[in-house]
Amino acid sequence: MKNESLNLSKENSGRPTFAIIGAGAVGIYYGSRLVQHGYDVHFLLRSDYAAAKQQGFKIKSCLGNFDLSADQIHIYNQPLAMPKVDCVIVTLKTTANTQYEPLIAPLLHDQTAILTLQNGLGNEDQLARLFGEQRVLGGMAFTCINRIASGSVDHSAHGHIHIGEFNRGITSRVEELGKIFNASKIECRVLDDLKKGRWEKLIWNVPFNGTSAVLDQDTEVILSTPQGWDLIRGLMEEVLLAAKSDGVDLDPKLIQENLDRTTSMGPYKSSMQIDREMKRPMEIEAILGEPVRVAKRNGMSVPKMETLYQQAVMVEVGQSKK
Amino acid sequence: MKNESLNLSKENSGRPTFAIIGAGAVGIYYGSRLVQHGYDVHFLLRSDYAAAKQQGFKIKSCLGNFDLSADQIHIYNQPLAMPKVDCVIVTLKTTANTQYEPLIAPLLHDQTAILTLQNGLGNEDQLARLFGEQRVLGGMAFTCINRIASGSVDHSAHGHIHIGEFNRGITSRVEELGKIFNASKIECRVLDDLKKGRWEKLIWNVPFNGTSAVLDQDTEVILSTPQGWDLIRGLMEEVLLAAKSDGVDLDPKLIQENLDRTTSMGPYKSSMQIDREMKRPMEIEAILGEPVRVAKRNGMSVPKMETLYQQAVMVEVGQSKK
Repeated sequence: MKNESLNLSKENSGRPTFAIIGAGAVGIYYGSRLVQHGYDVHFLLRSDYAAAKQQGFKIKSCLGNFDLSADQIHIYNQPLAMPKVDCVIVTLKTTANTQYEPLIAPLLHDQTAILTLQNGLGNEDQLARLFGEQRVLGGMAFTCINRIASGSVDHSAHGHIHIGEFNRGITSRVEELGKIFNASKIECRVLDDLKKGRWEKLIWNVPFNGTSAVLDQDTEVILSTPQGWDLIRGLMEEVLLAAKSDGVDLDPKLIQENLDRTTSMGPYKSSMQIDREMKRPMEIEAILGEPVRVAKRNGMSVPKMETLYQQAVMVEVGQSKK
Repeated sequence: MKNESLNLSKENSGRPTFAIIGAGAVGIYYGSRLVQHGYDVHFLLRSDYAAAKQQGFKIKSCLGNFDLSADQIHIYNQPLAMPKVDCVIVTLKTTANTQYEPLIAPLLHDQTAILTLQNGLGNEDQLARLFGEQRVLGGMAFTCINRIASGSVDHSAHGHIHIGEFNRGITSRVEELGKIFNASKIECRVLDDLKKGRWEKLIWNVPFNGTSAVLDQDTEVILSTPQGWDLIRGLMEEVLLAAKSDGVDLDPKLIQENLDRTTSMGPYKSSMQIDREMKRPMEIEAILGEPVRVAKRNGMSVPKMETLYQQAVMVEVGQSKK
């Protein structure tokens, strides 16, 4: 497979086809927007399969509500039943990344691109090792979406995504994907440096997801004492050091911007805190473990981040026993 | 007041008199042992006052149960009603140290000694600033004692204490106190270096009290993953560095000894974890804050300990809002 031959629309006369792997709230929302705008999208569901097979999807969105009836959508409960597609969008929780191979391999033709919109660091690397670096793109979804019932999601704020090629600058493929998203009511920016975008998002995710999960306290509590500010700031400084060790220079102004933005959010529970409370697996390795490992591999000391990572592992074990 | 004139028995023809300030489980137990062996002990109680006034103390102990009837004990609910004594034993929770002055000052004659058996670091310093360094002694209680009802305690294991002069070696006063305890079924070792004893106890208290409180997980969970072991070991190494910066050389073998001992304890909840669960104030400053401040004042970096301290402050604020 040659790099330059990758082309989203090659196998089709017209519009590229999509699969959504791990269709939770994020996957159902973005996939449904593509369906709404005329794209052929194949959803792999698990817990929502039976309900969606009967009732389709119900999308409540700050950008306009809409429903998709059961015969407007292609849904599946196992990947071997699915067709090969031009682009696989991965919205699995990272704790299920061990399932990449059986879930994704059946969907790939020679030119299929794989776009992971998952959290944290290391997902593109894992996909590249399994399926070849040329297939892989990554992106970050900046959005508030919750699943409110089977097949039913509530998109309450934001919604834009940033996407980029893995270990490459901008290509015609990623530009085409960006156009498709933007034409489907999904505001999309194409990045020439995906790795930098990943680290930028970690400036928030490491301190706030990590701290809220290990302490079981929301962002307002975390920022209500000088000690809390000092720790969050210290963790953000370590994320900058870790990024630098990975060849990424982040603007130190991002620290204050993230602190200010979080203060304005009021009492917010991060996804990892909610997972802790619901006793679901937390995305520890992608959000905390991998950034720590990258820093240490590069000889950079990040003791506060490492403490948070080790604590999160302990909490997950402890919660499973409660 | 001259140093050499301090003498526990000076004001009395015979046996020295005692006050127990902050008589929770530890204070009631040790004070009652002194009463049982013929000493005149004056207890300052708060929540247990009414019950003890009627029923006295009920002591369940692995070293032998005994009861003290209401007319065998001197109990008070305010210090101004108490007589001056030869030795004030302080068993307040360190979160109440702001009350030292009003609680202790009324009990002091010229020669009164003050022995703090409280947790953590900095208690002797605070007492010395208020009442003069010559009065002050400190000690650590190694014991499992719980309050099971008003005026009723359960001493289930251990029970020995280590005591020493503050900023001095062994004196006749501390030797006399040691003899009194040992003659009252309280196994007591007299230390020539109290500060070293304090730091030795912090090797356990910092990592285990701190981690169990911020994560709300017991010692068995904490030690059930490699990440947990790494963090606890890392914290203990920082305690050794902090102690060294304070002029105290601790034996590195204590790390493994503390890990082994804790493993053998099974699922144990530290006092700070129990306080968190009961939404009571946690002894954050004495156990975590003061050791971190000492290290930083001495130019020693202890990022993991500092993280734990900052997290504990956040948890306490968060729990008060839940």
